Amino acid sequence: MDKNSLAPHFTTALATRAMQVETILQKLLDERLRAGEIARPERLMAAMRYGVLNGGKRLRPFLVMETAALFGANEEAALRVAAALESIHCYSLVHDDLPAMDDDDLRRGQPTLHKAFDEAAAILAGDSLLTYAFDIIASEETELDAATRLELVLSLARAAGPGGMAGGQALDLMAEEQNPDEAGIITLQAMKTGALIRFACESGAIIGGATRQERERLAEFGSAIGLAFQLADDLLDVTSDAAHLGKAAGKDAAAGKATLVALHGIDWTRNQLAGLVAQAEELLSPFGDKAEILKQAAHFIANRES
Amino acid sequence: MDKNSLAPHFTTALATRAMQVETILQKLLDERLRAGEIARPERLMAAMRYGVLNGGKRLRPFLVMETAALFGANEEAALRVAAALESIHCYSLVHDDLPAMDDDDLRRGQPTLHKAFDEAAAILAGDSLLTYAFDIIASEETELDAATRLELVLSLARAAGPGGMAGGQALDLMAEEQNPDEAGIITLQAMKTGALIRFACESGAIIGGATRQERERLAEFGSAIGLAFQLADDLLDVTSDAAHLGKAAGKDAAAGKATLVALHGIDWTRNQLAGLVAQAEELLSPFGDKAEILKQAAHFIANRES
Repeated sequence: MDKNSLAPHFTTALATRAMQVETILQKLLDERLRAGEIARPERLMAAMRYGVLNGGKRLRPFLVMETAALFGANEEAALRVAAALESIHCYSLVHDDLPAMDDDDLRRGQPTLHKAFDEAAAILAGDSLLTYAFDIIASEETELDAATRLELVLSLARAAGPGGMAGGQALDLMAEEQNPDEAGIITLQAMKTGALIRFACESGAIIGGATRQERERLAEFGSAIGLAFQLADDLLDVTSDAAHLGKAAGKDAAAGKATLVALHGIDWTRNQLAGLVAQAEELLSPFGDKAEILKQAAHFIANRES
Repeated sequence: MDKNSLAPHFTTALATRAMQVETILQKLLDERLRAGEIARPERLMAAMRYGVLNGGKRLRPFLVMETAALFGANEEAALRVAAALESIHCYSLVHDDLPAMDDDDLRRGQPTLHKAFDEAAAILAGDSLLTYAFDIIASEETELDAATRLELVLSLARAAGPGGMAGGQALDLMAEEQNPDEAGIITLQAMKTGALIRFACESGAIIGGATRQERERLAEFGSAIGLAFQLADDLLDVTSDAAHLGKAAGKDAAAGKATLVALHGIDWTRNQLAGLVAQAEELLSPFGDKAEILKQAAHFIANRES
């Protein structure tokens, strides 16, 4: 498959999904919050909106919606799960950017939340986005039966928690001094960035009431493109510049951080990426043409330039 | 009711519940986490344990368990919900203590988490405790049907999120410059400390399959003792010292923070506390003798000295 000939279709689909998720996030962060609360903590809500409505690619929501579509799932339900996942992803960015963590001033070319507001607002907005994600999924407005919503809550909590993303972030903070070997780096990345991408793909199968086997296949697809995502990210860190990335570049090398790119070089990494894309396509083969857009997503993730 | 004659019974019951919840928390933070994760982020888990296993009174877990007992609920299920709630409560303390928030060095006479570890560990451990709480409740090991677990997830997310505790904390940070009036202070406190205590009492009714009316009654009981809890806290801040409290005293006054005690004085506050205890007892009256320990809890909360 030649990525360039397919790119326009994929880019349009990604932008369409991003618009859908942006709309529901705006609704969820504005109207819906009015009902539950006693008073409106306006500044907190402004900080939450700033942390979420920032023009991201919305890749994880895209994966939720397109994997759900494979199974003819309720689109409104998928959209809400997608919004919840994006809320979790954005909370993690807000907290990761804090001075005590990665200490970043820029995110997608804009001041990070603690720069635009302050550190307390960034901590609380992150906490709130994380908590609110479970509210969104558990709510009756997410038109799925109780057992399915509960399954999604559990899977998302595990993907985001100490055995998933948060645990991976903790391992990453240790990596500079502990210098993990190849297996250690792969594990760290599977937790830090892989777990949420895996959840994105698996959740579509859960929402769509897929068989256990199909669900496992989608989860593996998520793991493959999750690893590809991280490899591409590490590659960009050494080959790109800040203007292109919208955030600081060359940070890994400067921090002496162990990455697979640092360990094996650029050519090896490009080969690995090609292998992961092939593996991702193979995992989708039982779904035939319906999975075409997801195959393009795998290519996009492996070859992205920002 | 004379609190002194009843205190021994209550104190023993509180200590017993605390021991039960400590045991399950230790189990949940050690054994259970092994299963889900790929690698053990040891330092993160040590930080989570430090943040949770710190000898707290475990008042919220006590309320979950004793309200659940009113309805003859499954005790193991109540214990797990209690542990999840305590995990959320402790996350909020860890984040509130951070330099960018309340900047506290001491908590229950011990160094706060960011002092014992570092700020990054405190941020991540807080995030992890928050996320893990939803994992605990949603898990099949919490022996409740899917609809009940989902109801608990939703109620807890709302109590802890931007319309509840986190929102209250945000309003509190604004309070120094915005100087809220009496209604503003009550709202802020109902969100910041009241929401979780209300959830603690309401969750017992949910776990026990209570009627809608009973559930509402328990929630109101929770609101009354939640407000009493905060009034007693504000009172302690002006009447106690750090050695007694295990944390800094006189902080509110030093920060010029508006509290009902500052607004109305000590005598007014003591009267209010007596009124809230009477209201709490009245709300429990339909449950007769079974609710005796909860009435004692109301007295304890209003009259506590640390």
